[in-house]
Amino acid sequence: MIEALRALKPEGLKAFTEDLKSAVLERVEDKIAHLESSMAVAELTVAVHYVLNTPEDILIWDVGHQGYFHKAITGRLEELRNMRKPGGISGFLKRSESPFDFFGAGHASTSISALSGVCAADKLSNRARHRVAIIGDGSLTGGQSFEALNFIGAQAYDAVVIINDNEGSIDATVGALHEHQSYKGYVESLGWSYTFLEEGNDVEKAVEVFNKVLRGSGPRVLHVKTTRPDLSHEKSYKPGTTFQWYAAEALRDVLTKYWDLQLISPAMFAGSGFAPLKYAFEDQMIDTGINEAHAVTMAAGIAATGGRPWVHIYSTFLQRAYDQVVHDIVLQKLPVVFLVDRAGVVGADGSTHHGFYDSGFLSDLPGVIVWNPMDGTELQSMIREAADMVLTGPLFIRYPKSTTVCGKAEPFEAWRWLQKSQMTKGKTDEEEEGYVGYDLPGLGADLEGVLFVTTGELSSYWKNHPVGDHIHLAQIHPIPEDALKEMLGKKLLVVMEETAGYGSIGGTISMLVATSQMEKRFSTRVVVKRIPDRIVDHGDRSLLLKELGLIP
Amino acid sequence: MIEALRALKPEGLKAFTEDLKSAVLERVEDKIAHLESSMAVAELTVAVHYVLNTPEDILIWDVGHQGYFHKAITGRLEELRNMRKPGGISGFLKRSESPFDFFGAGHASTSISALSGVCAADKLSNRARHRVAIIGDGSLTGGQSFEALNFIGAQAYDAVVIINDNEGSIDATVGALHEHQSYKGYVESLGWSYTFLEEGNDVEKAVEVFNKVLRGSGPRVLHVKTTRPDLSHEKSYKPGTTFQWYAAEALRDVLTKYWDLQLISPAMFAGSGFAPLKYAFEDQMIDTGINEAHAVTMAAGIAATGGRPWVHIYSTFLQRAYDQVVHDIVLQKLPVVFLVDRAGVVGADGSTHHGFYDSGFLSDLPGVIVWNPMDGTELQSMIREAADMVLTGPLFIRYPKSTTVCGKAEPFEAWRWLQKSQMTKGKTDEEEEGYVGYDLPGLGADLEGVLFVTTGELSSYWKNHPVGDHIHLAQIHPIPEDALKEMLGKKLLVVMEETAGYGSIGGTISMLVATSQMEKRFSTRVVVKRIPDRIVDHGDRSLLLKELGLIP
Repeated sequence: MIEALRALKPEGLKAFTEDLKSAVLERVEDKIAHLESSMAVAELTVAVHYVLNTPEDILIWDVGHQGYFHKAITGRLEELRNMRKPGGISGFLKRSESPFDFFGAGHASTSISALSGVCAADKLSNRARHRVAIIGDGSLTGGQSFEALNFIGAQAYDAVVIINDNEGSIDATVGALHEHQSYKGYVESLGWSYTFLEEGNDVEKAVEVFNKVLRGSGPRVLHVKTTRPDLSHEKSYKPGTTFQWYAAEALRDVLTKYWDLQLISPAMFAGSGFAPLKYAFEDQMIDTGINEAHAVTMAAGIAATGGRPWVHIYSTFLQRAYDQVVHDIVLQKLPVVFLVDRAGVVGADGSTHHGFYDSGFLSDLPGVIVWNPMDGTELQSMIREAADMVLTGPLFIRYPKSTTVCGKAEPFEAWRWLQKSQMTKGKTDEEEEGYVGYDLPGLGADLEGVLFVTTGELSSYWKNHPVGDHIHLAQIHPIPEDALKEMLGKKLLVVMEETAGYGSIGGTISMLVATSQMEKRFSTRVVVKRIPDRIVDHGDRSLLLKELGLIP
Repeated sequence: MIEALRALKPEGLKAFTEDLKSAVLERVEDKIAHLESSMAVAELTVAVHYVLNTPEDILIWDVGHQGYFHKAITGRLEELRNMRKPGGISGFLKRSESPFDFFGAGHASTSISALSGVCAADKLSNRARHRVAIIGDGSLTGGQSFEALNFIGAQAYDAVVIINDNEGSIDATVGALHEHQSYKGYVESLGWSYTFLEEGNDVEKAVEVFNKVLRGSGPRVLHVKTTRPDLSHEKSYKPGTTFQWYAAEALRDVLTKYWDLQLISPAMFAGSGFAPLKYAFEDQMIDTGINEAHAVTMAAGIAATGGRPWVHIYSTFLQRAYDQVVHDIVLQKLPVVFLVDRAGVVGADGSTHHGFYDSGFLSDLPGVIVWNPMDGTELQSMIREAADMVLTGPLFIRYPKSTTVCGKAEPFEAWRWLQKSQMTKGKTDEEEEGYVGYDLPGLGADLEGVLFVTTGELSSYWKNHPVGDHIHLAQIHPIPEDALKEMLGKKLLVVMEETAGYGSIGGTISMLVATSQMEKRFSTRVVVKRIPDRIVDHGDRSLLLKELGLIP
């Protein structure tokens, strides 16, 4: 398609774009918020591929959620039909998918840094080509974009950054820069020239202005206004069915109970299901923009002055504030409650968005508490408990993007038996393997001496399954001592968790058991079932969990 | 002292400041680079404490390395004598040290975020007071400062940010903002008013201008020029004695061998010992400013276009780029070599600067290789090997701030025996406890069946100590399979590592051993000796290691 596009005369671009819009709209079912972002840049996408000689010229899309037209133009129109589905193409750009996807993403604000790398390499090898990044006004609230602009501005690299200003990402863009529309002063202060294009959805105009900017030299910003269509937002949750919904319900209670509780979210109130609360508790709900580091340190500042800060953040984005958790909260022993959304396998958003690493890196820190609810009932009890507790450090409540159930309020318990029998009914070897997805020689025909330890939603999946004695850890760090006592002395512990790596409960329990072997004169085997050491792609959450052997 | 200061008339402030300078200079022996930063703000420090009613009014220092006069004025003049020494006060600000240290730090660019938290809490509770943060021009290159400025600018909080512009942090400040001195345009674009004070080392003038700014409202920036004295830099290493020195030597070789190797450092070339190389390899050595996230993604950009990027970064600052390591490098399988400096116990810089967490959080990621050299010889062999390898993901070479030895070049080996005997000479129980700092019942009078596994500089400390069979892991992730085979079947594994938490080699080996118990029909006990689950303060590196039981 790209050759056909480049063979057109400028006056043919409008019809081409309109046809392409119909073709894309016909094929994309999911994800509508990202489809809107893509529709907003349909003309811009056509224009840049028309003018640039991609993939020889470098084109980097920030986040990549607005890349549906880019995909279509670069040979993936038909594959849009199965985008974000198991086996289908990614909803974001991905290097492994196409040579036109020069730099993949999923998280915001990285594109200009990546661009600077290309500039530096090209400078060293004297390579001349166009180098362009496209970044939204939302992504510009992330500090990394400033770091890169400030750096390139001083290096005076030949580089073009297109600011795609469409009034927001998923939530409306916050921050003075956008509010005051002061992009010109901002980028000029950082050593960039500035060109403005009001008519970003006029493809011929876009081609003309983009061509003009490309003919310049040094660091150049092209600020383009585009318009997002309203294609009726897909709900990220269905009322009364998800962890997100039940979190919002309980949050309403604690926001009411504690007038000084302030909930900070780095631009994810809409995704979290908390948007309705924002109107009811305007002074207590603070959207900081896409800036996780700032959001976390801001919470520390509230705690330092005796306030009651909570932070809502996706697990995958918490990776961006790890140092702030360590440096500003843990080392200062400040009480901050974190609602860690999208913990574990995330589903359609795929590899860039899974929440696999936080339970490991959080459990390594002194004075940290980590909770994983098994269902909506427990999540609500955790939120109420967290609000009432006197904390001496951070508390993390991690829940997945998943449907769940919620019964009547229960008091919080750090762990509990889901099944405990005098003598569990035996299973054949074949059945056992089916349950735990592991070869377990030596178990014989019974499950005596076997203890299953699960946490989070996996506990719900395994509850009522005849897997032998079964403990649910609501608190995974520190592991409650009396739960640990139950584990020692068993023949086999099967530990299951949606985490990657060697820390979290797999590593902790293994270390404890391995340390205890000789002293206690027994031999406990621990089988840790976790996310394997490989990249996990997108797909339906429960299908992925099954494929990973984590659910029956 | 603060009451005496506030009782003065403005015309007495100059003499007060001069006396205080003498008093501070007389008492501070370490750390000279930070003493220079503090001297530069002596007048500014006197001025803000004179005008503000601290600690009721909020005063937040970014990083806190320039806080020596702040400490002196707030009751810690005499304690400057033992600052940064074991048992002495911290070299940075610390909440637990004084109510005047409202928000501690050590890392850069957090102060304005913390300030925003105070503003938000005060707004909710209708509390009126002055709220001031002081941040250097170097720290402003960190994107978090932009995030906070952009956020506060939109919220229109009553807040004052003093930009202390003294031309640099440890390295000279880079970036267009500083180069073009365009702070006015920058902060105004973010919704802040701007006042400039050229004579920042004139205390009376500073008081006058600061008072004027305080009488304003909304977000206000006061940009102050100050002058750093040259007190002859303390060398962070002695030629020919440190890991840093030997790294620089080998780096010179590989920069010469590979013209396209580009080494990126987020403002730490001086601290790294690589400053001399910067002049010899100007095009290949890139200082990005204090912006770890940008530096890491920039390296990914170089790799994406086929270049040969290396990143020099301190372990503690790598925490700021964790998501960039995951999202931009690991998921895209890009080859980037990291020189992770200040890994493990860091010494005098203390709790905010220890490098305890990276070996855990890196080992959790797919396709990552992690190396810990035991001495200069091995570090050099690693650097040469890393340059020659064909990588399919990131490689991390972690080395401590420590003196070491370096012999003639050796080929890289992923692991090796440091001691292997048919039958190790027996030790008494008492001696054993002395060696490993652990109660090891059941070992009896011999060390047969005991295997010590160490990594990094700990291997050097334990080498030649009669501790029984002893393996050094140069590669800690993935653990070499043949080394693992040696571990299985042992009576006792003692695993030692400068890491906190449950991952890294302690968790990995424990998990493997715990998994193997039943199958192999043996019982191996694993004792993991690591950084305990508590905050570790500053002090001499080897004293701290001894206190933590990690060296003999």
